[in-house]
Amino acid sequence: MTDVVKHMKWWGWGREGVGFHHEDKPKFAPFVLNAVGLDLHTATPAVEPNFDELKVPRSKATAAFVKELAAIVGAEHVTKDDMMRVVHTYGKSLRDLVRIRGNMILRAPDVVVYPADEAEVQRIVDAAVAADAVIIPFGGGSNIAGSLEPYPKEKRVIISLDLGRLNQVLDVDADSGLARIQAGAQGPDLEAQLAERGWTIGHFPDSFTHSTLGGWVATRSSGMQSDKYGDIADIARGMRVVRPGGVLVLRPLPSTSSGPSVREMILGSEGRLGVITEVTVQVHRIPEKRDVFAYFFPNWNAGIAAMQEISESDARPSITRVSDSNETGFSLATSKESTGVSKFLSGTVLPTLMKSKGWNLDDICLSFIGYEGGTAHAKRQKKLVDAIVKKHGGMGVGSGPGVLYDQKKFDTPYLRDFLLDRGAAGDVSETAAPWSRLNEVHDAAYAAANAAYAEIGVKGWIMSHLSHSYHSGACLYFTFAFVFQDDPIAEYNVVKNAIQQSFVDHGATISHHHGVGVEHAPWLEQDISAEGVKVMSGLFAANDPGSNFNPRTVITSS
Amino acid sequence: MTDVVKHMKWWGWGREGVGFHHEDKPKFAPFVLNAVGLDLHTATPAVEPNFDELKVPRSKATAAFVKELAAIVGAEHVTKDDMMRVVHTYGKSLRDLVRIRGNMILRAPDVVVYPADEAEVQRIVDAAVAADAVIIPFGGGSNIAGSLEPYPKEKRVIISLDLGRLNQVLDVDADSGLARIQAGAQGPDLEAQLAERGWTIGHFPDSFTHSTLGGWVATRSSGMQSDKYGDIADIARGMRVVRPGGVLVLRPLPSTSSGPSVREMILGSEGRLGVITEVTVQVHRIPEKRDVFAYFFPNWNAGIAAMQEISESDARPSITRVSDSNETGFSLATSKESTGVSKFLSGTVLPTLMKSKGWNLDDICLSFIGYEGGTAHAKRQKKLVDAIVKKHGGMGVGSGPGVLYDQKKFDTPYLRDFLLDRGAAGDVSETAAPWSRLNEVHDAAYAAANAAYAEIGVKGWIMSHLSHSYHSGACLYFTFAFVFQDDPIAEYNVVKNAIQQSFVDHGATISHHHGVGVEHAPWLEQDISAEGVKVMSGLFAANDPGSNFNPRTVITSS
Repeated sequence: MTDVVKHMKWWGWGREGVGFHHEDKPKFAPFVLNAVGLDLHTATPAVEPNFDELKVPRSKATAAFVKELAAIVGAEHVTKDDMMRVVHTYGKSLRDLVRIRGNMILRAPDVVVYPADEAEVQRIVDAAVAADAVIIPFGGGSNIAGSLEPYPKEKRVIISLDLGRLNQVLDVDADSGLARIQAGAQGPDLEAQLAERGWTIGHFPDSFTHSTLGGWVATRSSGMQSDKYGDIADIARGMRVVRPGGVLVLRPLPSTSSGPSVREMILGSEGRLGVITEVTVQVHRIPEKRDVFAYFFPNWNAGIAAMQEISESDARPSITRVSDSNETGFSLATSKESTGVSKFLSGTVLPTLMKSKGWNLDDICLSFIGYEGGTAHAKRQKKLVDAIVKKHGGMGVGSGPGVLYDQKKFDTPYLRDFLLDRGAAGDVSETAAPWSRLNEVHDAAYAAANAAYAEIGVKGWIMSHLSHSYHSGACLYFTFAFVFQDDPIAEYNVVKNAIQQSFVDHGATISHHHGVGVEHAPWLEQDISAEGVKVMSGLFAANDPGSNFNPRTVITSS
Repeated sequence: MTDVVKHMKWWGWGREGVGFHHEDKPKFAPFVLNAVGLDLHTATPAVEPNFDELKVPRSKATAAFVKELAAIVGAEHVTKDDMMRVVHTYGKSLRDLVRIRGNMILRAPDVVVYPADEAEVQRIVDAAVAADAVIIPFGGGSNIAGSLEPYPKEKRVIISLDLGRLNQVLDVDADSGLARIQAGAQGPDLEAQLAERGWTIGHFPDSFTHSTLGGWVATRSSGMQSDKYGDIADIARGMRVVRPGGVLVLRPLPSTSSGPSVREMILGSEGRLGVITEVTVQVHRIPEKRDVFAYFFPNWNAGIAAMQEISESDARPSITRVSDSNETGFSLATSKESTGVSKFLSGTVLPTLMKSKGWNLDDICLSFIGYEGGTAHAKRQKKLVDAIVKKHGGMGVGSGPGVLYDQKKFDTPYLRDFLLDRGAAGDVSETAAPWSRLNEVHDAAYAAANAAYAEIGVKGWIMSHLSHSYHSGACLYFTFAFVFQDDPIAEYNVVKNAIQQSFVDHGATISHHHGVGVEHAPWLEQDISAEGVKVMSGLFAANDPGSNFNPRTVITSS
């Protein structure tokens, strides 16, 4: 079996041997106790699950079909091995982790195949369609919307088509700031290949360390610096997508009015229109200056108002992020005592200053704002932003916490697994809405989560930050957690569903950047209207009449 | 008949009584003589065509069907009047004007209907689909890609659905910078309604004075200040689209990953997915400062290189435009002697300065660059741009010509009609390509046009400007003209087709912002690949199984 393609733990986020620990964060245990009633000093961590105890459904792939695939990719690049099938069964949502640890695998891919190039992908696709098999394209496996899970009642053979060997930066057009990159390249790998030549995409989603370019496109992803570099929908200019009998080729274009955008039909399609093999993306010279500064606001309203005014101003920061008071409390609790924002608040100077301004320390909101570009440009953006922050009663506390934020930004999923090991279910829901409704959406999500916790009968936690700003609105990102009682998934669903429902009830979308999958699909009609679902459904049905491409994702009826 | 909806001349661009004249532009006649061999002193202008001589195909709409429509919109808002049917037959391309003046109307809409609101649109759509009639939505009628023309062999009743009465700004969400506007509102009307409240969309296509918001969305339009405000695809956040049996409602969202973007399926769909009745657009406070400055570059390569460097820099101008030497010559020839760029070059100071720098006056390229925002911001942008212009050997000549450019920017179509009256066919082709291929595309279009002129046996003219800049490329806009010999449309096709072919042969798209219609449709497959056409075709077929919505536009096979 190929060992070129590295996978995450079969039972959790990230690489084997890496995890969250809180020994150097003395405020963390008291925070968790207060937030969800979990005592980390007495909680017994679950033991690592034993793969041998897992019941993996038998593969439906015949020896003849596996042989057919092996003739395409080589015998060492096709497998019915149970471990590999399990690794390719789910993404990494809370639901996924609970199911995989709980021996709840109703259906797994029957065979996993690792093509070397687009030509092999084409032959696999054609063989699969000829055999009426199902193809689920697989990137890094970091999805948390259920986009990867096989339909439990699927009777046909399911192929997990792992793009992991298509991981090369093929070409950089330095004149145009465009790079041709294979879809299976993971974040760190492709950024390293680009950095060697002095370039960056500037796309850093939370999943960056384990997600792929193809996955970003398939789910319409955003990254932490998207305020500057754009969402993946802005970044991805050209594409190659293998479809039955041929490759859909979209040449890289800065803009075009050649009918409804086929590029935008592929973006967010989650594998339903074919297999993305290559994307031509915008790349940028690594900027002279890249700073992330921390600020505090007296309260959430002030923070949001400042972000809104920044978005309307002439300033163009690369990151606009503000946490609400709950998330600010969390950030302080997860900082090491000696560093980061904790350092600022553990002394007496800053709290005294805040109190002297009449701030309630329970209401304060931590914000990170990034500046990139030439030194003079970054300096000027900061000057413009600083004035707006000040106008809204906020204060800057320098770049120290920003450096730490930068180092820690990809660590949150490990914390989620740490809590799950100790009986607490946590996950995220994110959305976007116009500025005028943002506070309403925020408050409604809180109310929905708290009502759900009351229904379950638990003390639950919810926190939020604004993560991306646009002219007309912003993305709100919620994280929630509670100690589950009897049925983690059923209870998780109560909370998650309540939050999702609150989004669509208040003018917000079902997802700003995680995609639809099966988890958000129940609200699609409320988001884009019944006619919107019909139009999208027509696109899928007409272009995949046999439902061979990741069926029942995005639209679950077929 | 309603007189609320004003139409352009049935035989040409713009309002009755408005036209191009050159009495105050002494350089114009010599320029035209040199460019295309047409002597304006001896040319006899065609007399205004006589409507009574026009053969208009009989309406296929039965009295009963007209009565059914009248029951929906009122008898005064539905008509089989020949003049109204002719007004709604074509757009305003050169092909359209030649055909309408040449009594070449193979097929006209059978009935024109002016609904008052979305509810009436819904009833018309439902009645039309029930009767298996064809619906062609009509905005301002400024289209130049053939998107409005009825299929000559269409046997069913064709309804031109004129949105002209849906012309109101319904609501401004000041907190979000979003305005709900009816799709039939024309540029000047909606900007006036917004200006009353202190807002602007910032969308100013060449057709602005006679095009509508719905038309901009349906063709994926761009405007002169799109570098700052975005193309209409960026501006249009929410939509309402009437489809058989129901309204597709897309709520305004700053961004979303709710599957493939249905918003982007409507954008550029040219009426094939339904009738756009309302769009929620981004609006901006009218900026404190808005300046357009003129610059000269020693040659085209220097101009393009400067635009590219600006797009990569930290500067964010609102307009980046540079004309090649041919178009610069044209601009100088169409300026009044006493004003504009002519004034600068008619003296001796500037030419002497240019010559002293070693410039060849035949190679110089005129550029306009716009700055908008706060005064300090605009000033800083200009400073950044000025340095880049200087680096590439260019020089600024102040804001005087820019003011004139601003005043004259919507006048070009009148000049096209003036030339047509005198036997010269002129029109435009525009495209977009990556920076690395821009000069190649430019030169290839010139070579293609010149080969076409040789084939026809005429002295022809072509000129170009870069009109929009993006990170990875730019839009090139070509204008061509020649004195036609025997068959204006056949000869026009030779030139136009050669230019379009050169675009796709050199990595450029078939249209950056005019849309596809029937005129650009033959190159769609070469632009987005056979599989791309299949995917788009599937979208249309699945969502309009009876081909009732503007069939054979964008994809002409059905």
